[in-house]
Amino acid sequence: MSTPRPTEVPAHLREAVDAAKERVAALHAELPRWELVVWTAGNVSERVRDDQGHDLLVIKPSGVSYDDITPDAMVVCDLDGNLVEGERAPSSDTAAHAYVYAHMPEVGGVVHTHSTYATAWAARGEEIPCVLTMMADEFGGPIPVGPFAIIGDDSIGRGIVETLRGSRSKAVLMKNHGPFTIGKDAKSAVKAAVLCEEVARAVHISRQLGEPVPIEQQYVDSLYDRYQNVYGQR
Amino acid sequence: MSTPRPTEVPAHLREAVDAAKERVAALHAELPRWELVVWTAGNVSERVRDDQGHDLLVIKPSGVSYDDITPDAMVVCDLDGNLVEGERAPSSDTAAHAYVYAHMPEVGGVVHTHSTYATAWAARGEEIPCVLTMMADEFGGPIPVGPFAIIGDDSIGRGIVETLRGSRSKAVLMKNHGPFTIGKDAKSAVKAAVLCEEVARAVHISRQLGEPVPIEQQYVDSLYDRYQNVYGQR
Amino acid sequence: MSTPRPTEVPAHLREAVDAAKERVAALHAELPRWELVVWTAGNVSERVRDDQGHDLLVIKPSGVSYDDITPDAMVVCDLDGNLVEGERAPSSDTAAHAYVYAHMPEVGGVVHTHSTYATAWAARGEEIPCVLTMMADEFGGPIPVGPFAIIGDDSIGRGIVETLRGSRSKAVLMKNHGPFTIGKDAKSAVKAAVLCEEVARAVHISRQLGEPVPIEQQYVDSLYDRYQNVYGQR
Amino acid sequence: MSTPRPTEVPAHLREAVDAAKERVAALHAELPRWELVVWTAGNVSERVRDDQGHDLLVIKPSGVSYDDITPDAMVVCDLDGNLVEGERAPSSDTAAHAYVYAHMPEVGGVVHTHSTYATAWAARGEEIPCVLTMMADEFGGPIPVGPFAIIGDDSIGRGIVETLRGSRSKAVLMKNHGPFTIGKDAKSAVKAAVLCEEVARAVHISRQLGEPVPIEQQYVDSLYDRYQNVYGQR
Repeated sequence: MSTPRPTEVPAHLREAVDAAKERVAALHAELPRWELVVWTAGNVSERVRDDQGHDLLVIKPSGVSYDDITPDAMVVCDLDGNLVEGERAPSSDTAAHAYVYAHMPEVGGVVHTHSTYATAWAARGEEIPCVLTMMADEFGGPIPVGPFAIIGDDSIGRGIVETLRGSRSKAVLMKNHGPFTIGKDAKSAVKAAVLCEEVARAVHISRQLGEPVPIEQQYVDSLYDRYQNVYGQR
Repeated sequence: MSTPRPTEVPAHLREAVDAAKERVAALHAELPRWELVVWTAGNVSERVRDDQGHDLLVIKPSGVSYDDITPDAMVVCDLDGNLVEGERAPSSDTAAHAYVYAHMPEVGGVVHTHSTYATAWAARGEEIPCVLTMMADEFGGPIPVGPFAIIGDDSIGRGIVETLRGSRSKAVLMKNHGPFTIGKDAKSAVKAAVLCEEVARAVHISRQLGEPVPIEQQYVDSLYDRYQNVYGQR
Repeated sequence: MSTPRPTEVPAHLREAVDAAKERVAALHAELPRWELVVWTAGNVSERVRDDQGHDLLVIKPSGVSYDDITPDAMVVCDLDGNLVEGERAPSSDTAAHAYVYAHMPEVGGVVHTHSTYATAWAARGEEIPCVLTMMADEFGGPIPVGPFAIIGDDSIGRGIVETLRGSRSKAVLMKNHGPFTIGKDAKSAVKAAVLCEEVARAVHISRQLGEPVPIEQQYVDSLYDRYQNVYGQR
Repeated sequence: MSTPRPTEVPAHLREAVDAAKERVAALHAELPRWELVVWTAGNVSERVRDDQGHDLLVIKPSGVSYDDITPDAMVVCDLDGNLVEGERAPSSDTAAHAYVYAHMPEVGGVVHTHSTYATAWAARGEEIPCVLTMMADEFGGPIPVGPFAIIGDDSIGRGIVETLRGSRSKAVLMKNHGPFTIGKDAKSAVKAAVLCEEVARAVHISRQLGEPVPIEQQYVDSLYDRYQNVYGQR
């Protein structure tokens, strides 16, 4: 990673960083709203960069209550996970977020939760099969499992990147741990986290009483294509 | 369909359309309230027509957050799914709603959700058996499964209509997709969506530990008849 | 039943009836709060009587939204289920409530819900075994199943009374239908409804992965005795 | 126990006791917020002591609604469970809390709930295996089961202490009853109660469709060590 190591937020990125702090703080409220997290678990980050090689991320501090999340409380780090701005230690998952941004230039937002049903699949190390149209729409196929990895070095980030590079999925279930999701921005990654839990739950419940019917690959492809290109407001 | 193709809402239907926008916007709040939807999924529509062949529907725009739903944000379409009024693209499920109105003249409201338990039955392609008095009351028997259908043409609408025409049920579980419900107006269709999920959940949970006891057909019939004709305020 | 048939609330019971309307309206809010009901399902009643043979019940009207429940909206019936005061039709379950009051003089409150897990046991016609101290405390043993009964005559009320007379339980699971609970007043019956669903859920979940350990009868007895006589504020 | 038996709160502990009442009252709101309790069940306590042998606990009164919990309503007891200050009877679980403080000097907070999934494991008398990194972080291994014990003497407290002394876990599942958790203060014990239910739920759901993958002991150890020493704000 050859990005310049800023010791502070460059002046020309101030406005973009502050806007990202607003968005990231507000998006954290979506995690308890959709019941994806308990206590202080879970985190959302968003990337802020320019075309001169500055590349930063905005993320929640470590171990902070969802009631205490404000834009000012957010911290800024570089893509090695070093603190650039903020009064508190960054989330203990910052290294994983930073690794994803450093190695997936198309990613603008990352979310990590321990949402219950997704985590339950992750504990068995089992991918979620694509048996719902909502899943084909959003994830374009199964939601894959990433390796078991320990917090504290690059191994979580590496596991996420290696798993998602070979997949259309915006979500990966890190084994024995929980889901990470990516998106073009933080909002898109939060949406993927919400839908990941929803399909993890619905497919789990479906399988409790029998085998869900698979969707033929041609239909998975056409649903994914339509949803990525047509859905929503243009 | 030989309804006149309006390019705008006819003046004499203005008041009725605005009242429907109010109702439809307010009823959308029932979907997250009863946990039938996540993120922007799900939609409610209501029909507005006159006796001169004008036949319109009011529905939510595509990909809009439940926090941003106001009467003014609602859009109006004709029964071919063409936008008649509104600044945003209509819900991507509009064609299905329109098809139902065009082919079931008794229907005044349509709701679509991906509610979890109903979707879990839909993923197995399995109808929900009638083992609860609440189910006999509201649905008059099992909740049937409709065919797998791709978004983008008439196939979802056709699947709904073909399945519900041969049934007393106000709900159909579209295979690998989720439930659609109908009613005499939007509120009645929302109620059917709420009760569809509730019976999907209760019957699922009951079957996890054994076989629920069926209700004899004569009792299903008498419960349905009483509920449709006696219950509630007259 | 030889209670005098009032055509209106006797003047000397006016204050007591109004106080009961306040309590019953407020207690209805506990049903959605603890997720025991959806839409307009469920109802709470409380008895108001004197020592001259007047015996009335206050209950929610039929098919009314939980948002529209106010003390003034509550209705008053006699123990034959006839409307004594109120502008709307009483709950369609009023006959069952009235039958319980008429045949169980110690009962001062009745609650009916379709709470999910209790209803799931009811659909299998299976009693909930006493494997939790909380259950021994509140119900003094298993929660029994009552017969299948059709709405519209005395059969639901009869089924409740026959089942609860031979039991320490304040709750009965009416087959294919849902739970009814009783108490010394409406609050006590609501508490029993909340705890009935909680133990129905916990015991169901416990049994999904094996057999819960039964509690020996002597301990059930001592827990029940202590809780009924010592717990709470005196 | 040779602590002086105060008949009132000593003057030099007044400020500390009042601060604890504030914290304990506020922390009770976390129990319904994270759906760990229904009705009046559950309780939080915090220890207040000095170095002269005064040792007190602040706890919720018995049978009081979560809506009525204020700092002033909290009661103060000594470590034999005797009431020292307060207008209402202390929680019926006070003896168990007091026993824990009396025998585990490192404990500053205790929480008891009947949270659903933890109680479901407790009803089977089965420990929760350590198959999630979140569980290794917080509990350092499996969550153990304590003995069946009757309310009313020391047996619950003894069961908690005997089970937790041989474990890194901050939570114990009392058989047929529910979880008790400990912490350095009341907030830490509430956090353990929240995470205990979350891992009880996720591991339960995971096991419904197969066997979760165990985490190797060396990784459990390194996760636990990191989390206890590095996580959060310093």
